Amino acid sequence: MTVRIGVIGTGMIGRDHTRRIQQVLAGAEVVALSDYNPDAARAVQADLAPAAQVYEKGEDLIAAPEVDAILVCSTGATHEPYVLAAIAAGKPVFCEKPLATTADGAKRIVDAEAAFGRRLVQVGFMRRYDAGYVALKAAVDSQIGAPIMVHAAHRNPTVPEHYLTPMAIHDTLIHEIDVLRWLLNDDYVSARVLFPRKAARSHGKLRDPQVVVLETAKGVLIDVEIFVNCHYGYDIQCEIVGEDGIAKLPEPMAIQMRLDAKLQNPILTDWKDRFVDSYDVELNDFIKAAAQGTAAGPSSWDGYVAAITSDACVAAQEADGEAVAISLPARPALYN
Amino acid sequence: MTVRIGVIGTGMIGRDHTRRIQQVLAGAEVVALSDYNPDAARAVQADLAPAAQVYEKGEDLIAAPEVDAILVCSTGATHEPYVLAAIAAGKPVFCEKPLATTADGAKRIVDAEAAFGRRLVQVGFMRRYDAGYVALKAAVDSQIGAPIMVHAAHRNPTVPEHYLTPMAIHDTLIHEIDVLRWLLNDDYVSARVLFPRKAARSHGKLRDPQVVVLETAKGVLIDVEIFVNCHYGYDIQCEIVGEDGIAKLPEPMAIQMRLDAKLQNPILTDWKDRFVDSYDVELNDFIKAAAQGTAAGPSSWDGYVAAITSDACVAAQEADGEAVAISLPARPALYN
Amino acid sequence: MTVRIGVIGTGMIGRDHTRRIQQVLAGAEVVALSDYNPDAARAVQADLAPAAQVYEKGEDLIAAPEVDAILVCSTGATHEPYVLAAIAAGKPVFCEKPLATTADGAKRIVDAEAAFGRRLVQVGFMRRYDAGYVALKAAVDSQIGAPIMVHAAHRNPTVPEHYLTPMAIHDTLIHEIDVLRWLLNDDYVSARVLFPRKAARSHGKLRDPQVVVLETAKGVLIDVEIFVNCHYGYDIQCEIVGEDGIAKLPEPMAIQMRLDAKLQNPILTDWKDRFVDSYDVELNDFIKAAAQGTAAGPSSWDGYVAAITSDACVAAQEADGEAVAISLPARPALYN
Amino acid sequence: MTVRIGVIGTGMIGRDHTRRIQQVLAGAEVVALSDYNPDAARAVQADLAPAAQVYEKGEDLIAAPEVDAILVCSTGATHEPYVLAAIAAGKPVFCEKPLATTADGAKRIVDAEAAFGRRLVQVGFMRRYDAGYVALKAAVDSQIGAPIMVHAAHRNPTVPEHYLTPMAIHDTLIHEIDVLRWLLNDDYVSARVLFPRKAARSHGKLRDPQVVVLETAKGVLIDVEIFVNCHYGYDIQCEIVGEDGIAKLPEPMAIQMRLDAKLQNPILTDWKDRFVDSYDVELNDFIKAAAQGTAAGPSSWDGYVAAITSDACVAAQEADGEAVAISLPARPALYN
Repeated sequence: MTVRIGVIGTGMIGRDHTRRIQQVLAGAEVVALSDYNPDAARAVQADLAPAAQVYEKGEDLIAAPEVDAILVCSTGATHEPYVLAAIAAGKPVFCEKPLATTADGAKRIVDAEAAFGRRLVQVGFMRRYDAGYVALKAAVDSQIGAPIMVHAAHRNPTVPEHYLTPMAIHDTLIHEIDVLRWLLNDDYVSARVLFPRKAARSHGKLRDPQVVVLETAKGVLIDVEIFVNCHYGYDIQCEIVGEDGIAKLPEPMAIQMRLDAKLQNPILTDWKDRFVDSYDVELNDFIKAAAQGTAAGPSSWDGYVAAITSDACVAAQEADGEAVAISLPARPALYN
Repeated sequence: MTVRIGVIGTGMIGRDHTRRIQQVLAGAEVVALSDYNPDAARAVQADLAPAAQVYEKGEDLIAAPEVDAILVCSTGATHEPYVLAAIAAGKPVFCEKPLATTADGAKRIVDAEAAFGRRLVQVGFMRRYDAGYVALKAAVDSQIGAPIMVHAAHRNPTVPEHYLTPMAIHDTLIHEIDVLRWLLNDDYVSARVLFPRKAARSHGKLRDPQVVVLETAKGVLIDVEIFVNCHYGYDIQCEIVGEDGIAKLPEPMAIQMRLDAKLQNPILTDWKDRFVDSYDVELNDFIKAAAQGTAAGPSSWDGYVAAITSDACVAAQEADGEAVAISLPARPALYN
Repeated sequence: MTVRIGVIGTGMIGRDHTRRIQQVLAGAEVVALSDYNPDAARAVQADLAPAAQVYEKGEDLIAAPEVDAILVCSTGATHEPYVLAAIAAGKPVFCEKPLATTADGAKRIVDAEAAFGRRLVQVGFMRRYDAGYVALKAAVDSQIGAPIMVHAAHRNPTVPEHYLTPMAIHDTLIHEIDVLRWLLNDDYVSARVLFPRKAARSHGKLRDPQVVVLETAKGVLIDVEIFVNCHYGYDIQCEIVGEDGIAKLPEPMAIQMRLDAKLQNPILTDWKDRFVDSYDVELNDFIKAAAQGTAAGPSSWDGYVAAITSDACVAAQEADGEAVAISLPARPALYN
Repeated sequence: MTVRIGVIGTGMIGRDHTRRIQQVLAGAEVVALSDYNPDAARAVQADLAPAAQVYEKGEDLIAAPEVDAILVCSTGATHEPYVLAAIAAGKPVFCEKPLATTADGAKRIVDAEAAFGRRLVQVGFMRRYDAGYVALKAAVDSQIGAPIMVHAAHRNPTVPEHYLTPMAIHDTLIHEIDVLRWLLNDDYVSARVLFPRKAARSHGKLRDPQVVVLETAKGVLIDVEIFVNCHYGYDIQCEIVGEDGIAKLPEPMAIQMRLDAKLQNPILTDWKDRFVDSYDVELNDFIKAAAQGTAAGPSSWDGYVAAITSDACVAAQEADGEAVAISLPARPALYN
């Protein structure tokens, strides 16, 4: 069967997912589009999905009988109501990050889905679908013994003026928060943030870089350097230290050259290139599960835990090096 | 539009391409299947394409009005007649290697396609679609200056008893023959084969390893080590030396580990894993072109040149280190 | 001139330094030997320095007129009195780690040397002479911009039962404490120790691994993983994050092999092999300065600062993740 | 005992060896100096060896009773007579490359030494003392099985106008000729030279690059790329393919940096930096053997074989891709 998909929000990521469904992946087609700016929706329709219907309101798209499953790619504040509406309609829904703008909002989604009794929500944590992380998880699970420590880094060459210190957590660390839980099959119990001196390129209101230290329920100690003015490139590092050895996330594929008295290979500079392949894989996972009327991959519970953890990390930014405790409510059986 | 595809030959590769079209790629569906063993075709139908029609004869599949394009995955000796039939029917056809079992056979296909006047044939040289080779070509075209030398290696851990010395060319080197022409945008003018002592693991009738030396029209000197009893793994190496520097084919993505007093990462041992992703990309290219009624990627001319070059290399295996000349007829305008 | 050297302590390291002077390095000869066990001294005399005089007491060796300079390689508790005696005699003295067993003892040496008014003491922090660290310092000084963070690791495959938690500082981290100050040209202002769960191979009384976090006067944030039951090898890692980029300590020279389905190179397992070349260089530096009647390289001030820092780190091991302040007295002009 | 050394030829390399003996290495001193330009000898005396005697004639230096051993660092054409004189005097002699300017000249030295009956001559093939090659030899001897093929490269960024095609053998390949025989413990039986098109930066009279193919008595096939206008750096590569796996010469130690959107480390550009450490080791080997009245390391037989092989390679440059046979006379028992 072909999964008939409605896309809410047709900005950069909504357009890109539409292209993916129409031109790259088997098993689905975009039958409905919606955007707060209807012209944007119509432009995507014209370019990529001429047979799709354009809806003024996302709620109507969700309710439309020809729509089997929904992609929520609209602005963050609208995620919660759209996802709740999809759950109410019993339709699988893929929601880009964040699942909700507050932990409480994410909790409402978890509760609604748990009440519905079947998984319907996939959150857009695409790193779990990256071939490098997938291979790293296999190495962690089978080669290096039980994990004890993690050393990670998330570096951007630069950020705009409006990027403030808490965004280092909500927009940047959020990916490590999710993917490290998944890699370790573990939960966080505390967060601590340590600041070196501010980088010269960090703009006035931003404290950058910082090191976030997370502790897990199993006693793993994680340090993540966040450095969003590192200048040299977009660079994601992750090293897992286990009882028997160490496994490291691969560098992105690159051509090694001998040139200009340097043995060199390019480092990416645009974050959009780093995990580009994983978007195909995550959407394929969504389509395959949606064809069965359910969802797989990162769940609303994962989105909720990420929100709680983020809040603790932001609090820790103001705690002068003290650890901030992280506690989770009981996990509903649906997410075990 | 959805391209309706007929698959001739439903062995390992035919089944795999059917899965790809049905489950992975957008824009096509398998509507017809054929195999010299009809039960095999019906098994693939049952597993992957229930709506497809099974034809006893490949010729009937090619002629069937519901079939827009053809995949030839049958045994090598049947490739030529099926491809010629597809050209006669004016339908795009993807043909697995070899295009024909002789250079003359390949020439007949070139002539038929040139007479038809539009490209219809894509040959299954999948390495051109491998992300590593694609990036290497970009580096060759823009970073290291004009190429002067190539050092390459094609190593298998082991081969069966029936693998004889000429198969090192026809089954193994054939990939380098095609992909290096494409990388260099050049043609071969001579081939030479040099043999070191035979490896201890090489079986009685096989002279392994060997070094094939190719010279191109632009004066590039290429050495390719073929070693099909290298024992340690399946390993493809390629290094291009240009006027300004050197570019190297990336190693396959792998997790680097510190384990057992070794800094180590796995090397593949099964050739099927090495270029697995490129099959998706090559078939996607076929589907996109077929939707326009034509073909792109490696052409029948490329298949023909590969056949001529292979024949010269096999002759060079018996020439005691002498160079064997390679000359090509004029290239039809269709392939410029 | 040939520097005439007396060696106090003829155990493993004293014997090795004697061999170095007699057989490897130009410009010096061992003319006197002493050990609390005179037979040990005589054995070294017989094997390596037949012309040397054996002294029962180190003090007599220091006072002997034919001795120009002294190597203190005896047990730790004797370092302070021997070094003070050498200063009193106005003779250059190379002292293996630790300079003294307490910070106060090191301070007495600093005071004596400062009062003498000329540098006479070199402390055996050999990493400053390692070619890798020397090259790293050059990169830090000229390529990557001002340092902001350091990520380091010091891993041993295993330790004996008598190795207790504070020894992770006094015997292990001590090398990072000195070499990172030197690399950064900076001083520490606080130390913090974080413990993940204990490694399964860590014996009963030892808390291993641990992460020591140091902050410097210039605001650099340093994390050093100490893991002395890492099992896989002896491994020293150091990465400096600067304003413009990152520089990494090289791995030890090793042969990369393709073997057994692994791209692999050996990791050392014995710490004695890791910095073996740097002992030659440090002693050469001592000889060259001693020929001028003075000392260069790591000073008694450096030994004193290392002692103060170590004490703070040990205190931090018991401080439950709190930062322990490190404050230094004014640096005597002699050490600027 | 201290070996008293006389140095003939006080140009760059003679001066550098004098410094090494006087300031770096134990066990020797320079007691005599000679140069065709006596002022040059006196300058080295003043700078490095004030106690040395300056001789007008090399022959007198060799005969001088206070001289135990000789270093021949003079111009190539004088090597043969000086080495023969040293043998006649029964004194160990270290001779820089070439041992003689002709194979016949080298043969006369071999004959004289064999007649003398004890090894006295060490030839300055320093690569055998390079830590990388030493480790590679250990891997070849114990890890990768019997060698079957070698892929090597010798690249210089540029060469002066007076560097002509045969110098690619006599001055450049000569190092591979010696070190590969030693690595493989084997002898050459044929040489072949293949030329790609000329590099754009190659000056008018020079055919550059070239690939030299050597075959050994044990059946190993060696290809060595010589490219002396490679522009990007000075780069020596060597990979040995054995029955069980592959071992690769390490890259020189370098700091890996992340900088300017590149993961990069410097490549050397000056050949003098590449094997600088090995000069210390080779001279130390000479001193230790000379103290016993003999010589070790690369022998006059090795120098002779290198000369014969070089001549064959130069002949092969003119043989249009044909193999030129290499045959050696019987090896005197002294060199077994």
